Amino acid sequence: MFDLIIIGGASAGLAAAIYAARKKLNFVVLTEKIGGQSLLTERIENYPGFEEIAGYELVKKMEEQAKKYGTQILEGEDCEVLKIEKTGNSFRLNTKGRGEMETKSVVVASGKRPRLLNVAGEKEFTGKGVTYCSICDAPLFEGKDVVVVGGGNSGMEASLDLLKYANKIYVLEYGLKIIGDEVSQEKLRQSGKVEFIVNAKILEIKGDKFVSGVVYEDTVSGEKKELKVEGIFVNIGQLPNTDFLKGFLELNEFNEIVVNGKTGETSVVGIFAAGDATDIPFKQCVIAAGQGATAALSAHKYLQSLL
Amino acid sequence: MFDLIIIGGASAGLAAAIYAARKKLNFVVLTEKIGGQSLLTERIENYPGFEEIAGYELVKKMEEQAKKYGTQILEGEDCEVLKIEKTGNSFRLNTKGRGEMETKSVVVASGKRPRLLNVAGEKEFTGKGVTYCSICDAPLFEGKDVVVVGGGNSGMEASLDLLKYANKIYVLEYGLKIIGDEVSQEKLRQSGKVEFIVNAKILEIKGDKFVSGVVYEDTVSGEKKELKVEGIFVNIGQLPNTDFLKGFLELNEFNEIVVNGKTGETSVVGIFAAGDATDIPFKQCVIAAGQGATAALSAHKYLQSLL
Repeated sequence: MFDLIIIGGASAGLAAAIYAARKKLNFVVLTEKIGGQSLLTERIENYPGFEEIAGYELVKKMEEQAKKYGTQILEGEDCEVLKIEKTGNSFRLNTKGRGEMETKSVVVASGKRPRLLNVAGEKEFTGKGVTYCSICDAPLFEGKDVVVVGGGNSGMEASLDLLKYANKIYVLEYGLKIIGDEVSQEKLRQSGKVEFIVNAKILEIKGDKFVSGVVYEDTVSGEKKELKVEGIFVNIGQLPNTDFLKGFLELNEFNEIVVNGKTGETSVVGIFAAGDATDIPFKQCVIAAGQGATAALSAHKYLQSLL
Repeated sequence: MFDLIIIGGASAGLAAAIYAARKKLNFVVLTEKIGGQSLLTERIENYPGFEEIAGYELVKKMEEQAKKYGTQILEGEDCEVLKIEKTGNSFRLNTKGRGEMETKSVVVASGKRPRLLNVAGEKEFTGKGVTYCSICDAPLFEGKDVVVVGGGNSGMEASLDLLKYANKIYVLEYGLKIIGDEVSQEKLRQSGKVEFIVNAKILEIKGDKFVSGVVYEDTVSGEKKELKVEGIFVNIGQLPNTDFLKGFLELNEFNEIVVNGKTGETSVVGIFAAGDATDIPFKQCVIAAGQGATAALSAHKYLQSLL
């Protein structure tokens, strides 16, 4: 019987681990892959304390820090949590390949995954021009031509983030119409930097070491076209990793975990949550880390109340 | 007319500055002293990303990072904000010695200050045995004898934090009675490590380079006594720096700013808040930094809605 199980090993989960370990809780971190989405960013410039650090490097530092205080991390696809059940005053977790585990409390920090384009070159150039985070990466494309994929609000936001940096922004939308807020569209149009292209189906991302262009099909004319760009900002949605929680605790319309933003409490007493899987509006490394610390301290307080 | 004024230059304010600067807002940071309470800690071990860093060093890094993107910081006692007024769609700030400033939005990150003992040696040994943060510093006193000043709940929490580390804990309370939760008192008593001393008025903190002891008066017998300890954990209350906000926005019973924990919004539209001056329960550097980022992103979103 653990005091605490932390689900997820990226910034929220590792921050929670640092705090749980320093409280000397009997706990374990379960993660499919340490680092999660932080690994997608080659250069993080907005984590306070580091002018510039690679995602994997920051994660490595947090991992070592957690381990210094005795954190045990179980990593691998078999660590995926398939189900949580309440059993009396505690919880039973069902994992893919590690059997069942019992714990008095849980911090869910399972993160989000970007919806992928699923086209040739996407995987290969992730972090080398292909990115899923405009807040993180827009400043890296100063003076460059870029494509934003997605004409919804997240595509608009990515374009707005890019406006002050990029030379030229092509917004490619699969549908008939750009559906992002008019105000944002207006602002983007007025800049003179942005070209909206609808009915555009991405076929391939090209490049050598880094992205050099993108090939798309005009779904009306059937014509194939190519744009020479150095950045591809994919904004076709995010999927929180919360399938295993459906029916167990409260999720919002986007399947994000509804939390108390000040404590990390969820709708189930004893279950706390932090990071990108929650309904906090901004998905940022330092925000997730702060929430991870909060959730662990709340779990600690909860455990003390059980004694 | 600024887009944004950030009040406070410690972790919450500097994190907000990093995010505001990367959004290219026209803004300024006003602070009496860059670093605030972070300067009180000689060794921070729980800020994710740094196994060990001095408070002033972490603050310096954040300051440089914010300045790299063009942040302007005004520092000094004359930067104290005395009053905020709403003027139409914007705000007017009255400073102690820098005159009036106009801004469209504000992030308040003015922090807290510990109530001081105001005895000889306290200032001299702050960060050298005298500390105001048990979560931060308890692990530094492994195997050592310490004094916790304050028999209320924060004193109990400090003692609980110390239980796994310290060799012996003296809890000194000025009043007749230890008033912290019974449950906590019980747990502390059962440990066999804790001695409660009431009617104890601290007179002096002694030491050479580091704390070596504390002198107190038994207010009943009038006797002076000395305890040989290496740590003094002062927990006689915290005072949020929110006097200038009274009557302007919603504060809770402790004079902390009531915020939406997910967005940093306060009761006044256009005013956001982050860090220890808010009603978040845990006062931690990384939590404040995450909140600072959140408040700046919320301010940015608000500014976009004005256009």
